[in-house]
Amino acid sequence: MTLSVYLAGQIHDDWRKQLKSKAIEKNLQIEFTGPQEEHDLSDDIGAKVLGEQPNKVVHDDAASGINNFRTEIMLKNADAVIALFGDSYKQWNTAMDAGIAIGLGKPLILIRPDNLVHPLKELSNKAHVTVETIDQAIQVLEYYYK
Amino acid sequence: MTLSVYLAGQIHDDWRKQLKSKAIEKNLQIEFTGPQEEHDLSDDIGAKVLGEQPNKVVHDDAASGINNFRTEIMLKNADAVIALFGDSYKQWNTAMDAGIAIGLGKPLILIRPDNLVHPLKELSNKAHVTVETIDQAIQVLEYYYK
Amino acid sequence: MTLSVYLAGQIHDDWRKQLKSKAIEKNLQIEFTGPQEEHDLSDDIGAKVLGEQPNKVVHDDAASGINNFRTEIMLKNADAVIALFGDSYKQWNTAMDAGIAIGLGKPLILIRPDNLVHPLKELSNKAHVTVETIDQAIQVLEYYYK
Amino acid sequence: MTLSVYLAGQIHDDWRKQLKSKAIEKNLQIEFTGPQEEHDLSDDIGAKVLGEQPNKVVHDDAASGINNFRTEIMLKNADAVIALFGDSYKQWNTAMDAGIAIGLGKPLILIRPDNLVHPLKELSNKAHVTVETIDQAIQVLEYYYK
Amino acid sequence: MTLSVYLAGQIHDDWRKQLKSKAIEKNLQIEFTGPQEEHDLSDDIGAKVLGEQPNKVVHDDAASGINNFRTEIMLKNADAVIALFGDSYKQWNTAMDAGIAIGLGKPLILIRPDNLVHPLKELSNKAHVTVETIDQAIQVLEYYYK
Amino acid sequence: MTLSVYLAGQIHDDWRKQLKSKAIEKNLQIEFTGPQEEHDLSDDIGAKVLGEQPNKVVHDDAASGINNFRTEIMLKNADAVIALFGDSYKQWNTAMDAGIAIGLGKPLILIRPDNLVHPLKELSNKAHVTVETIDQAIQVLEYYYK
Amino acid sequence: MTLSVYLAGQIHDDWRKQLKSKAIEKNLQIEFTGPQEEHDLSDDIGAKVLGEQPNKVVHDDAASGINNFRTEIMLKNADAVIALFGDSYKQWNTAMDAGIAIGLGKPLILIRPDNLVHPLKELSNKAHVTVETIDQAIQVLEYYYK
Amino acid sequence: MTLSVYLAGQIHDDWRKQLKSKAIEKNLQIEFTGPQEEHDLSDDIGAKVLGEQPNKVVHDDAASGINNFRTEIMLKNADAVIALFGDSYKQWNTAMDAGIAIGLGKPLILIRPDNLVHPLKELSNKAHVTVETIDQAIQVLEYYYK
Repeated sequence: MTLSVYLAGQIHDDWRKQLKSKAIEKNLQIEFTGPQEEHDLSDDIGAKVLGEQPNKVVHDDAASGINNFRTEIMLKNADAVIALFGDSYKQWNTAMDAGIAIGLGKPLILIRPDNLVHPLKELSNKAHVTVETIDQAIQVLEYYYK
Repeated sequence: MTLSVYLAGQIHDDWRKQLKSKAIEKNLQIEFTGPQEEHDLSDDIGAKVLGEQPNKVVHDDAASGINNFRTEIMLKNADAVIALFGDSYKQWNTAMDAGIAIGLGKPLILIRPDNLVHPLKELSNKAHVTVETIDQAIQVLEYYYK
Repeated sequence: MTLSVYLAGQIHDDWRKQLKSKAIEKNLQIEFTGPQEEHDLSDDIGAKVLGEQPNKVVHDDAASGINNFRTEIMLKNADAVIALFGDSYKQWNTAMDAGIAIGLGKPLILIRPDNLVHPLKELSNKAHVTVETIDQAIQVLEYYYK
Repeated sequence: MTLSVYLAGQIHDDWRKQLKSKAIEKNLQIEFTGPQEEHDLSDDIGAKVLGEQPNKVVHDDAASGINNFRTEIMLKNADAVIALFGDSYKQWNTAMDAGIAIGLGKPLILIRPDNLVHPLKELSNKAHVTVETIDQAIQVLEYYYK
Repeated sequence: MTLSVYLAGQIHDDWRKQLKSKAIEKNLQIEFTGPQEEHDLSDDIGAKVLGEQPNKVVHDDAASGINNFRTEIMLKNADAVIALFGDSYKQWNTAMDAGIAIGLGKPLILIRPDNLVHPLKELSNKAHVTVETIDQAIQVLEYYYK
Repeated sequence: MTLSVYLAGQIHDDWRKQLKSKAIEKNLQIEFTGPQEEHDLSDDIGAKVLGEQPNKVVHDDAASGINNFRTEIMLKNADAVIALFGDSYKQWNTAMDAGIAIGLGKPLILIRPDNLVHPLKELSNKAHVTVETIDQAIQVLEYYYK
Repeated sequence: MTLSVYLAGQIHDDWRKQLKSKAIEKNLQIEFTGPQEEHDLSDDIGAKVLGEQPNKVVHDDAASGINNFRTEIMLKNADAVIALFGDSYKQWNTAMDAGIAIGLGKPLILIRPDNLVHPLKELSNKAHVTVETIDQAIQVLEYYYK
Repeated sequence: MTLSVYLAGQIHDDWRKQLKSKAIEKNLQIEFTGPQEEHDLSDDIGAKVLGEQPNKVVHDDAASGINNFRTEIMLKNADAVIALFGDSYKQWNTAMDAGIAIGLGKPLILIRPDNLVHPLKELSNKAHVTVETIDQAIQVLEYYYK
């Protein structure tokens, strides 16, 4: 069976690309989804669709509605969710997406580097699996097919 | 009808106390719940109940399980959730609790100061109401009874 | 058992007051809820809580979020919903609230005057009961206790 | 992944046709569903299947049951819903379908022309995205695949 | 805890009265609900509320809507359901109510006399408990409190 | 889209065969499911699998468990349900299956001959569509694809 | 708020009594429920209600139906579940009740003595909290009210 | 339709292999899933992915999280569950998986040898079908396609 796995996390580096290419190497039948990774597009999609907005708050809200429309469909159709945290950025969307996954009862893998153990302890406890690296997350997905 | 409102947010200052006393001033029939506010107790409850743990990761996980047991009952019984963000701390639990509320379909008020508009734009868009201050959140609760 | 009944419909005249006083006359143990009936308050609650908004669209959206926060709690706690339509106003909120009630599986009474049969035929078919007057709706509620 | 999108709205002009041909132009993998667009058929399907009915109310109810049977299957299988409002017709079915989508937790795009901002403000606030034109709705769907 | 128990079954004799008085004798804290037992009222409630209907089919449908509105609220609020079958009447409402209880996941007691074993075998298998008499059903309710 | 439609009703004549061949004639993409139609097999499947049972009640219960296992999978996977009633047999399984469909929120077509209007009035009111003949039911299914 | 806590576990010794008296000592507002603790009554309730059964299998099944009717109401109304394992007995009901709690999304405390770590590792991982003693479970409940 | 059937039970002998080959012999269109059958891998997967753990309890918990991630996806996607019990091992995972299946409303076949009737009586009563052998379970699956 092909699984659908949603990748929650920041969109500033290419961690999803790495994860996907490792999954392909291992021949895992997985369709990955996730938030819009083209950062400017993600920020400006509201204005692009709806035109210039009266101020920054409304500009951001317009973009967010379209981003949320897109990711909610993906999250609801996902068999599982992976949430990756790192040292940069606030990453509140990552924690929110992980929370939604928990609220919807979706199995969740948390990728949490060693130095973030304490601030992510409740989220880790609610996740099904907590790992430290992308490679370990791939091993968990690989185990699904064993 | 007495509402039950869960207060998600950091536990380092007395914002919940302020909010509750304002609610009392206005005579709102609301029972407030939320994460353990005694910080040391929240961090060490696992070891207090289960004894010393082999390392910090397990120490934290033991506490988190008990914290999550407590808050999950509260969240599931809540009629609504308020999530407050500020300038300090990582606040991933706040975002996670807000996400769980969204996943469970609970009406959500986000308290978001002006300077956090951008990193909380998706969460704000999913919330029912976004305000900037505790007083405004109280006004929204007060409106429920009007 | 005290029932909770949500009254969907326009807020321009006193139909809810009439309905409630008839329920009291008949001694029905019912707690009625519904949208904010003070019209100006309903329109301006966003600006009252959040301050002046950049334009009319945002002004309206700010009010709506607070109205929706309030009514969603009420609708979810309702045992049944009554939706009244009349000759004036667009009444899209009435139809939307009735639709939400249907989506949530809440028993629904539709009050539909004779001349609105055709445009409300699908909604009437989804309602549990369609009546023409407030008095008839009260008779249905009264029957619950017989 | 092929999405299923339900198109709520009046059935008097060819807006669905326009929307669908724009989706085809952009090669979007979307299956569109929606209410019966052949107006006379929609009105008379009850009598066509069941024979002449005793009066107009029953005639309409008979048609509505069959229309609702058809659209409920479609709505429940939809990944998302688009609801379009315009200047003509009462459009209570549109608001009801949008309400059902909200009650079922389906992501919702509202197409709302500029002059209908106020009467649709609560619905807009509950929708994931509000746009003004069909072209903008298509852009949102296109964004799903980016 | 006071239980709410819905009593599905024909409304032509006083079996509910017998069952209720046995429950009172045993001091069981149970609130019983069920379909309208005043037979004529049940048949004619549609016409009483809505006026004379064009034919017998519509007359019956009008009554049924109001009966269903009433019983659906009761069934959804019930902790458990008892369905009694006997030798007379078609009793399709009894089987339908039992089916709804099963679909909603409500614990179900079936009262089935000896001679109806075969035609009720699938329903009996889906019920939590099958007994032959009202006294036995009372014993099962009594056991809840032991 | 291929629909899955569960056919509830007695298994003593070939009404399902008729209905299916009419659906094939009209080229409807529908997969039909339903209870075991080979009557003896349906009655004796328990004993066939488990060996002779101690008495008739247990013999029947053993068969019912296996029948229910089979039909519950089918009902849960169905997009819609058709329930046919006629003049013969008790047909409590038909009413139970229709009730389960209602409890699960599955769109329901009731096939009810003219002389059964009264005893099936509540079930008819809960069904999406009530028709009198198999041909009419097929017309409703056909309308889905129009 | 008074919590309702279901106590899953063997019924051969007085562990529930101990747990309850400790809860009373600490003044915890908790209503405890659980399986029938009078062992003979639990085993023979089927025959007591229904009369002698044809063989041991049916005797046991008759008792189980009544036990399951009772515990299912309790489990569904519970805010949380405690499951205790020990060295004696097969305790499959304990594991089943814990599994049902997990399937229903009820917060779960597992009481697992040291020597049962390995065979209960998957259950422990799904529980919110795993402790070793009744006293520790009480501490977790006490923490709810802090 | 291809069914997905989850096989709950111990992983120490080849009962799943036997069951699967019998299903193939009979040409049943069934995809079987279940817990990891390679025993050492199942016990050590946590350490394999995450590295050596501080003690046996944490070692086991790490493995369990990954096993539970894998099986929860499978259980949620299953159309039905088979749970086999035998004379060896504690088999609490089997009872837990069966309990989860019950909590999720999945149709359940219990394979229970004659000598385990009493300790599995409540589970048997909640299962849709109880059989004694793998061959009988296959007959039940075969009946689905008849």
